[in-house]
This record gives sequence, C-alpha cells and structure tokens, in this order.
Amino acid sequence: MSIDASATVQKDATGHLRHLITLEGLSREEITALLDLAQFYVREPGDLAARDQSLAGHTVANLFFEPSTRTRVSFELAARRLGAEVVNLDMQSSSRVKGETVLDTIYTLQAMQADILVMRDAEPGLPAYVARFVAPHVCVLNAGEAHLSHPTQGLLDALTVRQLKGDFGALRILIAGDISHSRVARSAWQAFKTLGAGELRMAAPRELMPPPEEFPGVLRFDDIDQAITGVDVIMTLRIQRERMSATDIPDEASYHHSFGITMERMGRANPDAIVMHPGPMNRNVEIASEVADGPWSVIQRQVTNGVAVRMAVLATILRNAQARHSLAS
Amino acid sequence: MSIDASATVQKDATGHLRHLITLEGLSREEITALLDLAQFYVREPGDLAARDQSLAGHTVANLFFEPSTRTRVSFELAARRLGAEVVNLDMQSSSRVKGETVLDTIYTLQAMQADILVMRDAEPGLPAYVARFVAPHVCVLNAGEAHLSHPTQGLLDALTVRQLKGDFGALRILIAGDISHSRVARSAWQAFKTLGAGELRMAAPRELMPPPEEFPGVLRFDDIDQAITGVDVIMTLRIQRERMSATDIPDEASYHHSFGITMERMGRANPDAIVMHPGPMNRNVEIASEVADGPWSVIQRQVTNGVAVRMAVLATILRNAQARHSLAS
Amino acid sequence: MSIDASATVQKDATGHLRHLITLEGLSREEITALLDLAQFYVREPGDLAARDQSLAGHTVANLFFEPSTRTRVSFELAARRLGAEVVNLDMQSSSRVKGETVLDTIYTLQAMQADILVMRDAEPGLPAYVARFVAPHVCVLNAGEAHLSHPTQGLLDALTVRQLKGDFGALRILIAGDISHSRVARSAWQAFKTLGAGELRMAAPRELMPPPEEFPGVLRFDDIDQAITGVDVIMTLRIQRERMSATDIPDEASYHHSFGITMERMGRANPDAIVMHPGPMNRNVEIASEVADGPWSVIQRQVTNGVAVRMAVLATILRNAQARHSLAS
Repeated sequence: MSIDASATVQKDATGHLRHLITLEGLSREEITALLDLAQFYVREPGDLAARDQSLAGHTVANLFFEPSTRTRVSFELAARRLGAEVVNLDMQSSSRVKGETVLDTIYTLQAMQADILVMRDAEPGLPAYVARFVAPHVCVLNAGEAHLSHPTQGLLDALTVRQLKGDFGALRILIAGDISHSRVARSAWQAFKTLGAGELRMAAPRELMPPPEEFPGVLRFDDIDQAITGVDVIMTLRIQRERMSATDIPDEASYHHSFGITMERMGRANPDAIVMHPGPMNRNVEIASEVADGPWSVIQRQVTNGVAVRMAVLATILRNAQARHSLAS
Repeated sequence: MSIDASATVQKDATGHLRHLITLEGLSREEITALLDLAQFYVREPGDLAARDQSLAGHTVANLFFEPSTRTRVSFELAARRLGAEVVNLDMQSSSRVKGETVLDTIYTLQAMQADILVMRDAEPGLPAYVARFVAPHVCVLNAGEAHLSHPTQGLLDALTVRQLKGDFGALRILIAGDISHSRVARSAWQAFKTLGAGELRMAAPRELMPPPEEFPGVLRFDDIDQAITGVDVIMTLRIQRERMSATDIPDEASYHHSFGITMERMGRANPDAIVMHPGPMNRNVEIASEVADGPWSVIQRQVTNGVAVRMAVLATILRNAQARHSLAS
Repeated sequence: MSIDASATVQKDATGHLRHLITLEGLSREEITALLDLAQFYVREPGDLAARDQSLAGHTVANLFFEPSTRTRVSFELAARRLGAEVVNLDMQSSSRVKGETVLDTIYTLQAMQADILVMRDAEPGLPAYVARFVAPHVCVLNAGEAHLSHPTQGLLDALTVRQLKGDFGALRILIAGDISHSRVARSAWQAFKTLGAGELRMAAPRELMPPPEEFPGVLRFDDIDQAITGVDVIMTLRIQRERMSATDIPDEASYHHSFGITMERMGRANPDAIVMHPGPMNRNVEIASEVADGPWSVIQRQVTNGVAVRMAVLATILRNAQARHSLAS
C-alpha cells in the first residue's frame, strides 16, 4: 500500500475529498478550506454555543485496533458536538477474536448505517484498503496509521501554526526527535510543505532519521543545537518506545542531554518561537518540563484545535457525500 | 431453567409481551406484528429520517457477560435511534469481581431507573431468572443465551426471509452447520415454524446435530449435498470453536470440504435461493467466500434488519409496559 | 495531602463550592441545599420527566483510575439526564502507559473543553492535587478517593436518612463494619455530624477500627450487639478485601457470626430502624440476606438517591462556575 495509492483513493469522481487517509495530494486550497472551517469550530473556555448539528442523524464508528484514549475522545467529542451518534469499538476485544476479517467487521458496521468509520491501526494500509470496499455513502477517516500518516494531527498542527504565526512563507519550522517512527512528523511535513512553509528542517539522532528521499527539500540535522538556531516553530516528537525494539530504545537521560528541547536550546531559537508536541509527552526526555509549561508552549492549544479540526473534517466529508448523493439522484 | 419457563415468564397478566427471552410461545400474529414494526424501522443508506423517539427519557442498560461487539452495537444503535440513553456494562470488569450477585447488580441498575436490561450470557437461564425478580416497569431482553436462545436474531432472520421470499408456506428452508451449539438455529427454527414455513431442514455433521426430539417436524440430514437440493433459503451457521472442547473442533479444511456452503453446492439449491449467515463468518470454513459475497447473499441485509428488529422489540416492550402502567393507575 | 487541604481547595474566592473533594468544611446550610436540590431530581419508577437540561453543551469526563461500574454509571446517567455529553476514560488502558503524567492527561481533557472531571483513585490526594491545577472554569468531582473520601456517597446516605427519618437531631446512627478501609464511613460521618445527628456510633472489630482521634465525638464499640441496641439507622459496610493484605482478610463465616447484621441483631435496634449498605454487598458476610431484602432495607433507595445527588452536585458546581464567570466578565 503506497502513500500514492492512499492519495488517489480518497478523492471522489468529481475530485472532492471522500475519505481522509493522508494529506498527500491535498492542495493548498483544500487544506486552507479545512483550516478555515476548523477555525469556525474552535471553542474557547466558557463558549458552549453549538456551531451546527450537521451530523445529526448520522453515526460515527470509532474502530481503534491500536489503543488511544486522547485521539478517540477527541474524535468522539468532535462527532457528538455536531450531533452524531458515536459508537466505540475496542477492536482488541471484538469479533476479530472469533475469526472475522476486518472487512466483514466493516461491512457489518456499514449495514448498521455507520456513515463514517474512524480507524487507527499499528500496521500500514488498512484505511486505504477499507476505503476501496465501503459503500458509496460511507467515509473512512484515518486516525493514525503505523508510522505513515495521521492527517488530522497534521491539520491541527497547521492550524496552530497559522493561528500564532500567520503567513507560512515567512517561517522556519523544525520537526525534531524520533522522526522515523512518527506519523505525526510525516503528516505535519505534508501540511507545512503544501501551505508553503519558508524553510523546513528536521533533526534526529542518526538512527531515528529516515533516508533523505522520503522528505525532499527538507534541511536535515543530526545536531539539535544547530537545527534549532533561528527557527520560529519547534515541533518536538515523542520517543515511541512502543515502536522500537528493546535494544533501540535510547537511554532517557542521554537522549535528553543530546536531543531534548531544553531552556538553553530554546535560547537559540527566535525569541518569539513556539513549541509544539503531539502528546503524550515524556517530560524531561524529548522536552524539558520548563519548556513544556512555558509561555512559548502551544501544546494545549494543539489539543483544542484537534477537536475543531476533526469537526471540520467530519462536516466536510459528509457534505461532500451528500453532494454526491444528490448528484446521483 | 426450561425453555417453557422462559416462554411463560415473558408474558404479562394481560398476555402481552413483557420481556423477550425466547420466541417459543409467541404466536404467528405476535411475530408478524413485530416484523411489521421492524419493517417500518428499516433504514436504507442515506435515509436518516428519525422514525420516532418512543424511548426518549428511557434508559437501556447493556449487560454483556459474554463479549459481543456486533450485537452490543446493534442494540446500542437501535436504542439511541429511538431516543434512549444507553449505558454499557462490561460485566467481566464489573462488581461481580467484588463479590456482588448478579441480582444485586440488576437491582442497582433498576434503582438507577434503567427501564430495559439487554443481557447476554454464556450460561443458560439468566434472562428468565432475572425477569422473575425485576420491578413491574423493568423489561428484560435476551441478547443471546448459551446455545439456547437469541430471539432478536430469530426475528431478523425471519424479517430477511419475508422481505425476499414473501410467503413462508411456499418455502423450503435449510439450517446447516454447527446446530448443537447454535442459539441462532434454535431461535430461527422457532420463528420459521411459527410463521408456517413449508418445509424445514437441518443439516449437520453427526456430532454437531442435536437429538430429533429437540426439533420436531424437521427433516434431518447428515449429507449437505442432499440437504441443500431444492431449497429456497440456506442459513449457514458459524463453527463455534469457543463452545467446543479442543478435541471436538473440526479441522477447517475437511469441514469445508464435507460441510461448507460452496458454489458447487449452491448449484443444487433452487436458482433463486438466498444464503444467510448470522456472523461473524469463518470464511472458507462454513461458507465459501464466493458464496458469501455473491448476489444470493443477504448477510448484510440481515445486519441492517437486526437494528430494525431491535428497535421494534424495544418499542413494543415499552409500549406494553406503558399500557400496564396506565391500566394500573 | 491532608483532608484540610481538600476542604480549602474546593471553595472559590467568594466561598462557594467550586470542586467537591470532601464533605469536610461544608456547612449544614450547604449540605442541606444540595440535598434539597437532589430531592427535586429524585425520579420514581415511571417518572420520565426531564427536570432540567442545565448541563446542555457541557462535557463531563469520567476518569476512573480504579474500576467501578456502579459509581461510573451513576455519574454517567446523572450527567446525561441533565443534558451533558459524557466521555468515559478507562485510565488503566490510557496514555498513562505511554508515560504521560496524570496532570498532562487532565490538561488534555481540559483543552478539549471537558468542564467537569469526575475522578476515582485508589491512592489519596489526586482530586485535590488536580483541583489546584485546572483552569478556572473546570471543576473536579471526587468519586471515591482511597479510604478517605467519597462525598457524593455521604450525601446520598444523608438524603436517604432524611427522607425516611426526618430530623437528624433525634437520631441514633450506627456505622458498622470495616471502618478503617472505608471512605464511605468517613464521608457519611461528616454528613451526619454536620446535619446534627443526635448520637453517632461506630462499631468494628478492633483491627478494622481507626484510632479515636479520627472520629471525635463518636461512641466506639467493638461489640456489635451492644452497638446496635436502640439505634434508628444502621449503616453496614462492605468488607474491602481488595484493600487488605491477604493475612488481614477475616474468615467470612466467623466475621458474619461476630459482626454481621443478622435478623437477631436487628431485634436489638429500634423497631422502625432502617438498614443501609453502600454496595456491592457481600451477602451473609457483613449483612444477612434476610436483612438486606427486608422491609427495613433502604439499599435500593440509596442507589436511586445516588443519581439524584450526583445531578444536584453537577448542577450546583456548574451554576457556581457560571456565576464566577459572569462576575469576571
């Protein structure tokens, strides 16, 4: 399952977004439209006004083959705040144990009129595979796919940068840490690139840096002190122990020493630089606590934007489905 | 707990359905009324119109002592689409571990104003037992009881046959596979029999066929090729490994060879025969993939009908409870 | 984390309840106001009228670090019957495993606009700790904290006594059983004391009785027959095996013999005495089945009151938050 295939399968016959599997292949206009709608959905504390109920009568099924509380809750709240029914399926304890194929599980949910399937899996390929087989009115949203793709995370990162920094063309953005295992890095990179980021940097210890051909146009560093110098945005990544073999897991203290985002290193960035992290954080490993909790940290804003971005994607995907449907009838 | 006892306990003083524990003892008229209402609730893709909100203000509690994602989600969606609050209790991780009896758990839910208790258990007897002790306004729905009873499955199977084949009197219906462990077979048999099926056949390997007295009037086969000849409806059953001892589990390939529903065997059935399966399927064990995915397969329609049937049962049971209540006051 | 600290942290600058961590420090008027509102929310069987939708647009997150089906469901129904969105987080399977701190999980939920965090933990201190760090509009409800505090349980016990016995000043109340491990005993004692109970007694086997300074003013007994004589209210407690080391767990039969509430012992209480138990019960250990199921038992009423009390606390806490908010703006 190549990423290219995912990019193709997610558009409908009229070129509109039908599923969201990857940010690859989305135009600047498409991403901007999603961010604009997300901005409309952002709720500040105390703001309880319902934006719209565009998912009323619809059913969203969360299928998480890999456990995730924060992303599952974010999608669940996004769907419910738009009026949808939400069902959660813990796929570890599901029919899979009775020998059912994933596709049969999908067909079952589809036959129960689940309209949108939100899927997370530790292996690559499932969302695009499923998207090929679902009925015309059913949409697939990728909520995290192996190390490959996490498109709503990429969008929320882009929204966060846009809110705080405005014009992408003027920005130097650094993605730092365990890049090789990170779907967050891949999706953020696609979003930033498409939105025209002035300069994109990646920094990782050599053993956690993918080959250059995967990220054309990116400035690569294995020295974090060099990489961070003069940047406007620092996105640091979680050390993903769960995706490493035991011998590959770096020692926490030495990782922090050689690669952690510390106060001292923040001093090398631009004075108004912001710091992002997709969570959950390993404090004092990839990021020092003072950095995570400082005024430059936009980590909680990323979470707030995550709900808004997921509302925007749900509403857009469904509006496109309805347009196809009225075209067909 | 005999099945007879279940049939008796589920009617109220005026002879109306109070609980649904078994299809035994339901008249043709009662089953037909449930199917008629279910037909009204069937939603086609894109049809989002709410039918009614007859469960608004009511609470449905799903108590699954045996895990089941598909049936739990089906009941959950049925209840929510009628406006109910739904709470899911995973009874494996519940108070049972703290030493509480099942009846005390039930009393607790009842005291929290759960109006309808949907129960699944691997052991026989629990739904009828609980039905004896609940308060007058509380109803019990059996969502699968050991190998004995799965009444909403029997109703959805009957609805599916009625939609596609009309008059039961003209039909030859075959139930094939692991009959001895199958609550699906038992409930479907009761529904088909009561609705006046022309001819009912059962086919199973000898060791998976219950004694003749359990299914009076049924034509019994241990040769699937003979059994399938000339039938209009083929309901194939899942090999239920989880209910067999290790030595009883048949070899998959040899089971498929000797008993699977294959394309070749489909050729012996009537040309417009339909194929049903309660799911989850073991593909290429009890059913060949080409059969499961062919035009004669109504397996996904069964799932769609499952939600509709559960809506009909919920609405009927509750309407009867309200009639008793207004009679009493 | 002392209880005093909890009592202080839960009030806002104007002295109103902001969080509910402990009943300590609440005045008689404050507790009475909560009970009055709870009484308004009590639903009898068949009564489905929505009281109000004061939590509409708000989100309640249930964070249970210690499993509990009954309390989680009670909070969930309370919140939903007031119109809230509810998300359940099983904190055993959450991001904690990925190395995230509890506070970061809380910040994440807060950033998703969870307005009320309902927390249960086996260790002391978490609710008050979290309450110190949440944003001004976020409220923390303690749903059970180690052996220390379970304030909504104390309130539901008080409501139950008030409904059946009226004036607290005239009452002799006995709390009996495993007091040392019981947060229920501690919260009930605080409620009864504040409401002016005429006489408060505690009875426990010596090894399950805390030191006298923890419960000033309480009459202490290690003989249950003496303790029960002439009382109006008997609250018996669950033997909490899960909080004892293996060698401390009493033999069930000998515990029942020496300390169980039996029919014979009920004969020593006042003739119209009521019996309470927080559930889940160990039948025929701390309480005889005939006692639990007799006319003096108000155990199910406690459960009904539990939902009502939680509705009252949710509505009060939120109303106070809104008052602060409009004051601030």
